[in-house]
Amino acid sequence: MPASAPSHNSPRTRTEHDLLGDRDVPADAYYGVHTLRAVENFPITGTPVAAHPDLVTALACVKQAAAQANRDLGMLDAHKADAVVTACEEIRAGRLHDQFVVDVIQGGAGTSTNMNANEVVANRALELLGHAKGDYRHLHPLEDVNAGQSTNDVYPTAVRLSLQLAAARLSEAMAVLREAFAAKAEEFADVLKMGRTQLQDAVPMTLGQEFAAYAVMLDEDRARLEEASALLREINLGGTAIGTGLNAHPRYAATACEHLGAITGIPFTVAGDLVEATQDMGAFVQLSGVLKRIAVKLSKTCNDLRLLSCGPRAGLAEINLPPVQAGSSIMPGKVNPVIPEVVNQIAYEVIGNDVTVTMAAESGQLQLNAFEPVIAHSLLKSLTHLRSGCLTLAERCVVGITANREHLAQLVAQSIGLATALNPHIGYEQATAVAQEALTTGASVHDLVLAKGLLTPERLSEILHPDNLARPHARAAAV
Amino acid sequence: MPASAPSHNSPRTRTEHDLLGDRDVPADAYYGVHTLRAVENFPITGTPVAAHPDLVTALACVKQAAAQANRDLGMLDAHKADAVVTACEEIRAGRLHDQFVVDVIQGGAGTSTNMNANEVVANRALELLGHAKGDYRHLHPLEDVNAGQSTNDVYPTAVRLSLQLAAARLSEAMAVLREAFAAKAEEFADVLKMGRTQLQDAVPMTLGQEFAAYAVMLDEDRARLEEASALLREINLGGTAIGTGLNAHPRYAATACEHLGAITGIPFTVAGDLVEATQDMGAFVQLSGVLKRIAVKLSKTCNDLRLLSCGPRAGLAEINLPPVQAGSSIMPGKVNPVIPEVVNQIAYEVIGNDVTVTMAAESGQLQLNAFEPVIAHSLLKSLTHLRSGCLTLAERCVVGITANREHLAQLVAQSIGLATALNPHIGYEQATAVAQEALTTGASVHDLVLAKGLLTPERLSEILHPDNLARPHARAAAV
Amino acid sequence: MPASAPSHNSPRTRTEHDLLGDRDVPADAYYGVHTLRAVENFPITGTPVAAHPDLVTALACVKQAAAQANRDLGMLDAHKADAVVTACEEIRAGRLHDQFVVDVIQGGAGTSTNMNANEVVANRALELLGHAKGDYRHLHPLEDVNAGQSTNDVYPTAVRLSLQLAAARLSEAMAVLREAFAAKAEEFADVLKMGRTQLQDAVPMTLGQEFAAYAVMLDEDRARLEEASALLREINLGGTAIGTGLNAHPRYAATACEHLGAITGIPFTVAGDLVEATQDMGAFVQLSGVLKRIAVKLSKTCNDLRLLSCGPRAGLAEINLPPVQAGSSIMPGKVNPVIPEVVNQIAYEVIGNDVTVTMAAESGQLQLNAFEPVIAHSLLKSLTHLRSGCLTLAERCVVGITANREHLAQLVAQSIGLATALNPHIGYEQATAVAQEALTTGASVHDLVLAKGLLTPERLSEILHPDNLARPHARAAAV
Amino acid sequence: MPASAPSHNSPRTRTEHDLLGDRDVPADAYYGVHTLRAVENFPITGTPVAAHPDLVTALACVKQAAAQANRDLGMLDAHKADAVVTACEEIRAGRLHDQFVVDVIQGGAGTSTNMNANEVVANRALELLGHAKGDYRHLHPLEDVNAGQSTNDVYPTAVRLSLQLAAARLSEAMAVLREAFAAKAEEFADVLKMGRTQLQDAVPMTLGQEFAAYAVMLDEDRARLEEASALLREINLGGTAIGTGLNAHPRYAATACEHLGAITGIPFTVAGDLVEATQDMGAFVQLSGVLKRIAVKLSKTCNDLRLLSCGPRAGLAEINLPPVQAGSSIMPGKVNPVIPEVVNQIAYEVIGNDVTVTMAAESGQLQLNAFEPVIAHSLLKSLTHLRSGCLTLAERCVVGITANREHLAQLVAQSIGLATALNPHIGYEQATAVAQEALTTGASVHDLVLAKGLLTPERLSEILHPDNLARPHARAAAV
Repeated sequence: MPASAPSHNSPRTRTEHDLLGDRDVPADAYYGVHTLRAVENFPITGTPVAAHPDLVTALACVKQAAAQANRDLGMLDAHKADAVVTACEEIRAGRLHDQFVVDVIQGGAGTSTNMNANEVVANRALELLGHAKGDYRHLHPLEDVNAGQSTNDVYPTAVRLSLQLAAARLSEAMAVLREAFAAKAEEFADVLKMGRTQLQDAVPMTLGQEFAAYAVMLDEDRARLEEASALLREINLGGTAIGTGLNAHPRYAATACEHLGAITGIPFTVAGDLVEATQDMGAFVQLSGVLKRIAVKLSKTCNDLRLLSCGPRAGLAEINLPPVQAGSSIMPGKVNPVIPEVVNQIAYEVIGNDVTVTMAAESGQLQLNAFEPVIAHSLLKSLTHLRSGCLTLAERCVVGITANREHLAQLVAQSIGLATALNPHIGYEQATAVAQEALTTGASVHDLVLAKGLLTPERLSEILHPDNLARPHARAAAV
Repeated sequence: MPASAPSHNSPRTRTEHDLLGDRDVPADAYYGVHTLRAVENFPITGTPVAAHPDLVTALACVKQAAAQANRDLGMLDAHKADAVVTACEEIRAGRLHDQFVVDVIQGGAGTSTNMNANEVVANRALELLGHAKGDYRHLHPLEDVNAGQSTNDVYPTAVRLSLQLAAARLSEAMAVLREAFAAKAEEFADVLKMGRTQLQDAVPMTLGQEFAAYAVMLDEDRARLEEASALLREINLGGTAIGTGLNAHPRYAATACEHLGAITGIPFTVAGDLVEATQDMGAFVQLSGVLKRIAVKLSKTCNDLRLLSCGPRAGLAEINLPPVQAGSSIMPGKVNPVIPEVVNQIAYEVIGNDVTVTMAAESGQLQLNAFEPVIAHSLLKSLTHLRSGCLTLAERCVVGITANREHLAQLVAQSIGLATALNPHIGYEQATAVAQEALTTGASVHDLVLAKGLLTPERLSEILHPDNLARPHARAAAV
Repeated sequence: MPASAPSHNSPRTRTEHDLLGDRDVPADAYYGVHTLRAVENFPITGTPVAAHPDLVTALACVKQAAAQANRDLGMLDAHKADAVVTACEEIRAGRLHDQFVVDVIQGGAGTSTNMNANEVVANRALELLGHAKGDYRHLHPLEDVNAGQSTNDVYPTAVRLSLQLAAARLSEAMAVLREAFAAKAEEFADVLKMGRTQLQDAVPMTLGQEFAAYAVMLDEDRARLEEASALLREINLGGTAIGTGLNAHPRYAATACEHLGAITGIPFTVAGDLVEATQDMGAFVQLSGVLKRIAVKLSKTCNDLRLLSCGPRAGLAEINLPPVQAGSSIMPGKVNPVIPEVVNQIAYEVIGNDVTVTMAAESGQLQLNAFEPVIAHSLLKSLTHLRSGCLTLAERCVVGITANREHLAQLVAQSIGLATALNPHIGYEQATAVAQEALTTGASVHDLVLAKGLLTPERLSEILHPDNLARPHARAAAV
Repeated sequence: MPASAPSHNSPRTRTEHDLLGDRDVPADAYYGVHTLRAVENFPITGTPVAAHPDLVTALACVKQAAAQANRDLGMLDAHKADAVVTACEEIRAGRLHDQFVVDVIQGGAGTSTNMNANEVVANRALELLGHAKGDYRHLHPLEDVNAGQSTNDVYPTAVRLSLQLAAARLSEAMAVLREAFAAKAEEFADVLKMGRTQLQDAVPMTLGQEFAAYAVMLDEDRARLEEASALLREINLGGTAIGTGLNAHPRYAATACEHLGAITGIPFTVAGDLVEATQDMGAFVQLSGVLKRIAVKLSKTCNDLRLLSCGPRAGLAEINLPPVQAGSSIMPGKVNPVIPEVVNQIAYEVIGNDVTVTMAAESGQLQLNAFEPVIAHSLLKSLTHLRSGCLTLAERCVVGITANREHLAQLVAQSIGLATALNPHIGYEQATAVAQEALTTGASVHDLVLAKGLLTPERLSEILHPDNLARPHARAAAV
């Protein structure tokens, strides 16, 4: 069944052929019969692969690298290879993305996405070579565009690349958010407030310390994200169907990897054991775990922001979030913490996605994991939604936060938590008695200590000096 | 700050006002300033609420029921109410869905979706009344369309309705799949095969029994789905902001509920404790748990189909799934179980969604859960994707399954599992010895029993009669 | 290889035999060689099956029912059956539980637990019959105690029974907690406070309404638990290895089920399709989903209790939890909400267990799920820990909660949320203006409305009457 | 309320005092009143902290380091410090573990565990100093043993240390398992078999390659485990209550960290931002994610082992797992893959634990996470159970695996997957036609190619040479 000239049973379609028989494809479609079957087979979410532009771009990068390697190794005629390369460059520039029409959730380990890419690249290359779309005698989606390749090495490689692209943008967004928190940490460096443990008044700190912690968390999470992203640089391109490299030129893996590095600027390496690399979802699970970590901490931070701004009158009311919309259809003047709330929801989605990735990874069998499409879809959603969340949180919330300084100072002054600072001076048991009496009578710790003659006024003032409370060691060092 | 006539600073926009100030809205938009703010505040997924048509329809039903109740109770002028009702009916008929533009993941407990609905209904009603869009002096999104309502009772009620609509369609799709399995159970009723436990040969059964089990599972799951759906019929409409019913007419809850029942044909009831009902996510968590149950069992079924069709030559090769597309870009003639594979992936997504719903539900605080939008989005995705999966599995896979009858019969004849049937006749320990010898020597259980003179040929034939093995009690009853 | 008299190579051991050869078993052990192998094979958690007394009891119930059925049907000599029944009754009374030594996490679909039960029952029955332990010529663990049975019907049936026993006790504990909340609801019925949505001041309610909601939630959850528990009454006893009933008497299933009902007082029924019932984990997944629901809502309730008691001075400070221990090793007098905190942690454990159950259920293959032991272990942990949590929360926390009535009243008086009640009287937009001015200037809503002459003092007093705010409809009805 | 001499109201108890009043403690107990309260408050799982010996040891290490640092800095008398150090060394040697009686799931962020440690250390130190247990005038659990400390820095530090101890042992067990797989990879290096993708026959490989992949996976997972473990070396000791270091000597953090490093041999470092470090659960979430990754891949490996050994006659039957126990109570001679099955279940447990850890981490508020106990408990369970699973799998399963070499060779010879190797020589479309004809007619690919004259016999033999199929590049390199 050799490739034949396309027949046209109507001006609006062309006929293509696969192992199931003939099918009409829209004449202007760059995709072909394999894609058409897949679209029919997977009417699941209504969301096409094109919704993940990073993945489309990554596929084009891989196809380009493969064509360049095959050309170098004499496996693909130069004029064919050149046309393929040009077609891929166009896709990388953002063209033809609408031709990636297969559903994001699809059976077949990504075969349909790879087929879709092969067909779009082939038909665009055919056009560039002056042939009609579908005239695969001149350039074949599988024999030429897919030469020396299998879905099982192309698709995971493209997914790994797309995840790195998306991870880099998430990291940038996290840096923006980090800066927003760091700026507030500086702004609030001198705002004394009560720290809380287990939601109970604990000991004093500054609001700046509180916001600095959020910035530090983001730094650490970015470092973890970059480590996880680096694991994605090990690829199995050249392993073909199961990692043995059957049908690929012996030097193909190394050559294609080098081209992919040159095209993307990312230092890819070929996995040491291609059989293992073909079936291994470890790097995806690792990335998902790190995204979950980021989600957990972003969500904790947003919980704090919502809690600290609880009010305006019957809550903690320590900080004010900038109003961004009317909060209620019934309660006039109500302003809600809608930006932290949306970030919480993104976090819950990401944590759910992690379970999806986990189950899909665990269900792989023998030489391949058939469920990579849902892994890729879940991770790309998590990466892009987290990015949106970080930017939104930074720009529409954190930068506009203000502090209720007087209220905070007042809470420190009347706090029982000051008794902790007396421990080294009057002992835990005596300090406990003071704290209990303060709680019962409503008196202040300060007054009780003086009334009982436990410390001199001077000593007490020194102990309760704001700097001694919030930054005891900084002051000690200065003194 | 009374509602004022809309000013038009350009022919292409109109100016609207909220507590943050003035904003230009596209002149032809049915949504207004509150929606505009929300679109800007939540650039998260790129997927608008319109992507869930059941939710848009449900919002229109609730707004219509509210208007009818307010009219009945004298809280809304009849001419306003009638215009609102007509606008809602248009939306229910599928119009104006593209005006529901707020992101599916949004802060604010659904406020923005409710605002979006209020504005679209108001502006369409204004048009119907002969006024310009935005001329809220004549009919106000909040004071009229939202009269006696709060997001906190409207939104959960609409979500509950939308979930029932989607659940009903899932149930129908499950029935289609159930019929497909039941038909195969009948077709394969006489196909003897080895049953397996722990992936080891166990005792004989029929392929029909195997497929009948899949049908029965679906029956049971449908029953659970309908129970979970019924819990969604208890609504909190009339509770307004926190369930106390502040600002709603005393008879509003009952009247609106009655209208909603009439509009939808669903027997809604008002919750007994509206404060509890306003904050309670229990019915959503329950539905999510049942969807997870359905996913678990669909996935198990698909795992079985993939395993039983493992081959064509080096696997179990008991059944053949119909080919629906070429399976590989490198392996010619390879056909893969892509339809079960896509259903597995839907199942993993649904199981992940369940974790998202769980976390969002657990995170609700005090009188309201702020995270209902991600709960609604997750459940609607799970419902619609499961539905697609059931239909696809039925139509593109199950109906075309064939059995390799001879191969199956041969496996039974040579099986060591037949030794189990000898237990009652020669005892567990002696049967063990026969089984071990069969395994070691490659001889058949049948021949070994005869050679050892443990049973007469007649008795042994009776014991190993296929019907006695697969349906011992049916035969016993017949004899 | 017939059963033979036990040999004793030393006074402290006896020799037993299985398909792998001979092994010495401690002479005084009621378990035998199969159990010994399992203990060696599964050194996983260090926790024996005996840690789940409900499961041990349930196994004894099933073995007793089976023996009674086999006696009725002539499949087991009466003197053997009577000894087995007596042994089972002893185990049900709490004896010999320490002989159930296999690890709770074990391979083999529960086979080792069933073997353990068969051996303990057989050896105790042998003693009762005047024989030595291990002298299986007189009564055999597999041929007699396990007659007509398979692990694959015995174990799921026992697990289902044990879960119902544990669920009934959880339900009782939930009722205790419900009563504690209901008593507080009554005690706080007249305590006016600000309700909150999205952690922002909303509209007034009573503290009694808040606590009543917790009681109602528990009522609903108990109803769900009882529904889920009822699904566990359908059993597959009589299906033997894969549900075909091979080797069981045709009337065995019905007879054994009837005996099990009589022994336990629970109305068990035989599943309609035993092949399906043998492989189906649906009822376990359903129960797990409901336990997760209970966990979600208990956790939400505990989050609220911790939040409302946040203080003592720098938080909401609406209620006081009774102190049960010193809260800090460094902060004198600090008292923490440790009881709600421990319940939160139980909830997180239960939610994690649900994922374990889900994965184990999804991973079942063909005619059996090999992973039932971890399902049973997870569910029994969830049930018993939730029970402990409910009782602890009721007895050590809820019953001692007190309200800070004056503080709560003051917050209502100064609240901006009162503006909502003005909506129907002055309109949403004007009410918004009042609310914004109150927020900016610190003035009260009450004073601003009067100052602006928007309402008469009398009308305003009526609108802001506490009963009108918290229970508008109750008052409306009374008036 | 100064510490006073213990009163003894009976010879069997002593009286201790806390902020709630007096309580009798068993006279011989090393724990005191705070522990007693906690035992009564948390009757949750019945499992005491002593069940995690690594955690008890770690607490002793931290208490010792703190005492040494306080002695160095003049904050604790040398004779007290020396007694504390000796007591800690005894606990590290395994003594007094039974005195750590608080439940593993407890409220209070670990306060009760820290209190338990303080009391046990104090009372043992009192004994060493010649005083009665409970005579805290001479050495006080809080003022001396806990000097300069808070639960909030001690407990997380101890948990971090305990996790590293357990992780190191898991890593060793993974190395044992890795060696077992590597040995099999060598043993099976020349066993040709069909590789499978999507459970369908793909292209040939060796069984050695298959087992080598399992070994490589473990190598990679060990590297990730060690990275995650290294993150746990950053500690917040010295931050005291909320990270500000209140009440600790300015040089305490550095000094204590140095001592802890010397005691444990682990290069601990002090976190750069102690406020952040005190509330941050990131390293725990990261470790949990890596344990989940290990679980996912171990489970996938076990799924493969069970699938490849499916049989003995009606399955793939490629390999044989060593029998370790009788597989069935009804099916004689049946041997089941119980060891892989138990590892699967451990994996499901670990994945569930990850969700528990995730929720607990996300729920932390402000300056502290109150839910660390369930995080610690979950992680320690995951680490120790995974370790047991790896050792069990290596020793009771992998080392005894044998291959069915002839059966495997036969499957390759008759495989249609050979058509893939023809692609580069006859083209994808023609190879497809051959494959389809082979499937339909039952003929071999080899015979069809010759019959059609597509290749010469010599060329075909070369292409289908086993080494060319399984290791095309190795052979190409050799040639």
